[in-house]
Amino acid sequence: MKALVYTGLNEVTYREELTPEPQVGEAKIRIEAVGIFGSDMHAYHGEDARRIPPLILGHEAAGIVVSGNNLGRNVVLNPLICCRNCHDCRSGRSNLCAERKLIGMNYPGAFAEFITIPERNLIPLPEGMNPVHAALTEPTATSLHALYLAERALHRPVSEGRTLVIGGGSVGLLAALILNSHGCKEILLCDTNPLRRETVLKTGCCEVFDPKTEPVNLDDSFELVVDAVGTEATRSMAIRAVRPGGVMMHIGLQQSSGESDFRKITLSEITVIGTYTYTHTDLEGALKILHSGALGDLSWIEERPLSEGAAAFSDLNDGCSAAPKIILNPKI
Amino acid sequence: MKALVYTGLNEVTYREELTPEPQVGEAKIRIEAVGIFGSDMHAYHGEDARRIPPLILGHEAAGIVVSGNNLGRNVVLNPLICCRNCHDCRSGRSNLCAERKLIGMNYPGAFAEFITIPERNLIPLPEGMNPVHAALTEPTATSLHALYLAERALHRPVSEGRTLVIGGGSVGLLAALILNSHGCKEILLCDTNPLRRETVLKTGCCEVFDPKTEPVNLDDSFELVVDAVGTEATRSMAIRAVRPGGVMMHIGLQQSSGESDFRKITLSEITVIGTYTYTHTDLEGALKILHSGALGDLSWIEERPLSEGAAAFSDLNDGCSAAPKIILNPKI
Repeated sequence: MKALVYTGLNEVTYREELTPEPQVGEAKIRIEAVGIFGSDMHAYHGEDARRIPPLILGHEAAGIVVSGNNLGRNVVLNPLICCRNCHDCRSGRSNLCAERKLIGMNYPGAFAEFITIPERNLIPLPEGMNPVHAALTEPTATSLHALYLAERALHRPVSEGRTLVIGGGSVGLLAALILNSHGCKEILLCDTNPLRRETVLKTGCCEVFDPKTEPVNLDDSFELVVDAVGTEATRSMAIRAVRPGGVMMHIGLQQSSGESDFRKITLSEITVIGTYTYTHTDLEGALKILHSGALGDLSWIEERPLSEGAAAFSDLNDGCSAAPKIILNPKI
Repeated sequence: MKALVYTGLNEVTYREELTPEPQVGEAKIRIEAVGIFGSDMHAYHGEDARRIPPLILGHEAAGIVVSGNNLGRNVVLNPLICCRNCHDCRSGRSNLCAERKLIGMNYPGAFAEFITIPERNLIPLPEGMNPVHAALTEPTATSLHALYLAERALHRPVSEGRTLVIGGGSVGLLAALILNSHGCKEILLCDTNPLRRETVLKTGCCEVFDPKTEPVNLDDSFELVVDAVGTEATRSMAIRAVRPGGVMMHIGLQQSSGESDFRKITLSEITVIGTYTYTHTDLEGALKILHSGALGDLSWIEERPLSEGAAAFSDLNDGCSAAPKIILNPKI
């Protein structure tokens, strides 16, 4: 089969790979759409020690089952393979499973014509759903999970407060779209990339600004801040912007460490919540809201052939793509 | 009247001061017991720009009303004077009131024979309660408030999990005592001061260790970590020790800033909650549990004359007091 393989620093190669065959309990899926995510870019930059080349990346995938029990079914993949036996798995927090594995990291990923995955990791698509939209399930579940945690921690409903979203990539934009669908009327989003800002603005779900020309009175004024970038600078902005008693969600992780203002966190009683991926339930919920139309027409997705994946990585790297999400298609 | 006045860097002076007289709506209280707190030590070290000498410090006070509506009543003081009109005051979060003032900071404190305070800031003592125990209401409310926030954020009851408390001062010890009274069976507390460790151990509510000789397997193993110190080093220990999906409470604030491991916070989905003081309701709750005996006999409190307050500050500064709390009494 053809696959897009991470072959070395800043290099992905479209080449022939062995077609995987399913083991007992696994399904074989022909990939129809697979998104490029921040963590794929991280690997590409050689910044993720867990992803070792040569490796087929990609974990945001939709396709059609070509073997076994679910033959012919359109599905989206739950890319996290958990043990199902530990305390966390059994208490509904499979995202924390210490034994968890991820396709595109511990197993070959979905930037390929075919993939194999345990049958329990398949989620059936609603009738007639576009696989390109379905491939957005994974980042949507990431944002949904983060907002579920945020809404549990907030003192009042998001519809009564203001939210700042830092970063207009797919997770940031999807957070803004979900918040909008939850009735949050005042959402500000910032991104350093003018092309991204333009795309986000067009969705109509929020106001947009360039962090270099920050609005006045940003400090202490948001009940909720979503940091979908995760650098020392964005965390610093997030902590400044959150109002006393508010919540800061930390989703992105571009910089692992750095200085943080614990005086503000303490004296203003801020809740800082790290959020990691999603559960199977989050993925099912994400697929449902994507299909419902509550997040808009998703016209900001850009579809490209898998064979041109190297150019897509390069464009994302250079910041010259206006799309918060590029979906690769092995069939075109 | 006599008062203990913060007169300059590392200096408190027992001297004659003008006796305050109550304004409309205020009560005058003869102080019977007043605790020395970490923030008083902070001021003493010249590290709190909000406390400017000369200033009577002290805000953990119990006494008897000698004027007005509550004449003759034994009371404990709510030292936070809030506006009662803002969004936070009206939504039950008066500790976040932007207009809040504190006795011993914005107003003269309670290291004195007399103080005046709004009558609404008085909380009546249960019949026959020892004012020395009542003076512990404020730090108890600080711990109670923090644990209330923690218990809301935890996935399961504290009785099912393990807790690490960093720091065996009054707030740390009271957190351990409250957790013990809430059924938490596995509580570890650490403190660098061997005298403090000895005192904490005697309460029987927890295991105790020296952070210099850390137990093995400390990392990733506590559902709840309470940092009642708040330095870069204790925060680092707290983040290491908390298990995936767990909660870290940040109460102390000895060092405002510093490096923090946001990789762990994010990938392990840690909730970090800054916690600041208490509400009137927390103070009432704290007084009730102190009086109930649920926190033990409180024999670890050391009582000294207010006139010898300078020596008490000096002993606390030198780490040569075994007591997690020194209460000053103007009458002895």
